[in-house]
Amino acid sequence: MENYITLSQTATLLKEWDNILIISHKSPDGDTVGSAYGLSAILDKMGKKSKVICSDPIPKRYNYITERAAVHEFEPQHIISVDIADAGLFGASLSDVKVDLAIDHHISHRAFAPQILLDAGSAANCEIIYNLAVELKIELTPYMADCIYTGVSTDTGCFKYGNTTPTTMRIGAKLIEAGANFIQINKDMFDTKSRERLSLERMALDSMKFYFGGKVAFICFTDEMIKSTGASDSDFEGISPITRQIEGVDAGVVLREKEGGFKMSMRTNYILDASEVCATLGGGGHKRAAGAFLNLPMQESIEKVLETLAKFLGEEA
Amino acid sequence: MENYITLSQTATLLKEWDNILIISHKSPDGDTVGSAYGLSAILDKMGKKSKVICSDPIPKRYNYITERAAVHEFEPQHIISVDIADAGLFGASLSDVKVDLAIDHHISHRAFAPQILLDAGSAANCEIIYNLAVELKIELTPYMADCIYTGVSTDTGCFKYGNTTPTTMRIGAKLIEAGANFIQINKDMFDTKSRERLSLERMALDSMKFYFGGKVAFICFTDEMIKSTGASDSDFEGISPITRQIEGVDAGVVLREKEGGFKMSMRTNYILDASEVCATLGGGGHKRAAGAFLNLPMQESIEKVLETLAKFLGEEA
Repeated sequence: MENYITLSQTATLLKEWDNILIISHKSPDGDTVGSAYGLSAILDKMGKKSKVICSDPIPKRYNYITERAAVHEFEPQHIISVDIADAGLFGASLSDVKVDLAIDHHISHRAFAPQILLDAGSAANCEIIYNLAVELKIELTPYMADCIYTGVSTDTGCFKYGNTTPTTMRIGAKLIEAGANFIQINKDMFDTKSRERLSLERMALDSMKFYFGGKVAFICFTDEMIKSTGASDSDFEGISPITRQIEGVDAGVVLREKEGGFKMSMRTNYILDASEVCATLGGGGHKRAAGAFLNLPMQESIEKVLETLAKFLGEEA
Repeated sequence: MENYITLSQTATLLKEWDNILIISHKSPDGDTVGSAYGLSAILDKMGKKSKVICSDPIPKRYNYITERAAVHEFEPQHIISVDIADAGLFGASLSDVKVDLAIDHHISHRAFAPQILLDAGSAANCEIIYNLAVELKIELTPYMADCIYTGVSTDTGCFKYGNTTPTTMRIGAKLIEAGANFIQINKDMFDTKSRERLSLERMALDSMKFYFGGKVAFICFTDEMIKSTGASDSDFEGISPITRQIEGVDAGVVLREKEGGFKMSMRTNYILDASEVCATLGGGGHKRAAGAFLNLPMQESIEKVLETLAKFLGEEA
């Protein structure tokens, strides 16, 4: 039976435990990485041994976090997951892990651990890690501030998106005061592009098509196109949102050739519910960001998506 | 003789004055517009008549600010400038204006008014307007919060840049609490692009060249290229920063045909001081963002800039 616990109960558990594995979700992002290493640094300060594990390699752009972590050898006694909403996100190599405590901020959290600290009001899971440090009376080091700032900033688009709360802003203030290297972090997270990413963007803009009087922006990447840019998976992050930024566009669609079909990601602004549209195509997601996989050749994939959008928009396909 | 006054002295002046013109700088940006209309709304609440003037039309994307302002008819008795560092920024049609009080946050402020409220520690001039509201014990309305948030957010790249302070973050928290429509404001300011702007970006990426082993990214727009995109002056905002975001690039240069020559803008990351490089070409600016005008044909303009950069980088031209 799962048990939802408070911040103070969680602090008590951490004081009792030692030799802790901290698990980040697969395809790790700034919030899961910042949460895991931030928590690990807090445990360090408490004299506890801990170690971060993840089924996927942590992207190099988080080196300023991973390379400064303390290294401990120990026989694990407890496992904590951070920013993981569902056991399916442990990743293949860690699918059998038995988590003792889940720390999460997703309203959609599907219980997999006996103890859960869930705060769906936090914009980032790292806000919960910050609150834990306060509860444990651990003074933040600049390193902890870097970890926690990374999660808060990346999950809110640097305090830009609607999940940002006054509390998020005040935690940001405290992290800057604690010495977070926020200028460099924001530059690395938001304002640095590889040459490959640049090529990919150029290709995206060059091949973008508009449908239904400009309400839909559409990009289709074939394997050959992707190879010609040298772009990697992480270069694709942030390509879909480009489509949604254009004036008049309600739905932005990116198709990308993968495993004999096309991976589709959709972003919407106001009218369409992306999760509903994608559900019709066998996929799912959130209201403003969702996806599906189309096991079809290119032309048929494109037509299938356009037909579906036409129905939802009440337009002629 | 100019007189630097405190926040509280400024508040006293505002209590004494009435029938006030508030002047924004030419080529108005979010901070000068937010400051002017925010201050005007505060004066409204104090029962004073005021009106915002600007030598250039205020861009349409600030309609949510300009269209909600109270309208008063009066014979002006006092003039206040906001976010204006130099009398040269009044603009041609207002060059003769006699300002009674300058409210500014630029460290480079060149005194032109008898009374000056200068706070160079404020990331945005709107932070000073916020502090004035607090000093005057005016409770912020959602409209005032929209005005002030606009300036704070646009001047800090949404709390991203190095000018952001813990105070900036805490003011952001207060503005959200006061009802600032920050989600929509940030979307409009940072995440909305016109189709013309999109064409311009595509052209920028397509025509970008790299020099000195990738240290310099270079774009040159001819009149003909600009016309083909239908882009306006405001579409050019944010084009120069694109060049600086590329991994390995220290200096990004954008040349743009204008008035028989080329307007050059330069952005730098770490090594080069853009103001020094541009000074050599008869221009000037800040360390990381500067510009110059080249009264030369295209090829010669390009060569001139590259030769100058070569010298500063210690490279062969």
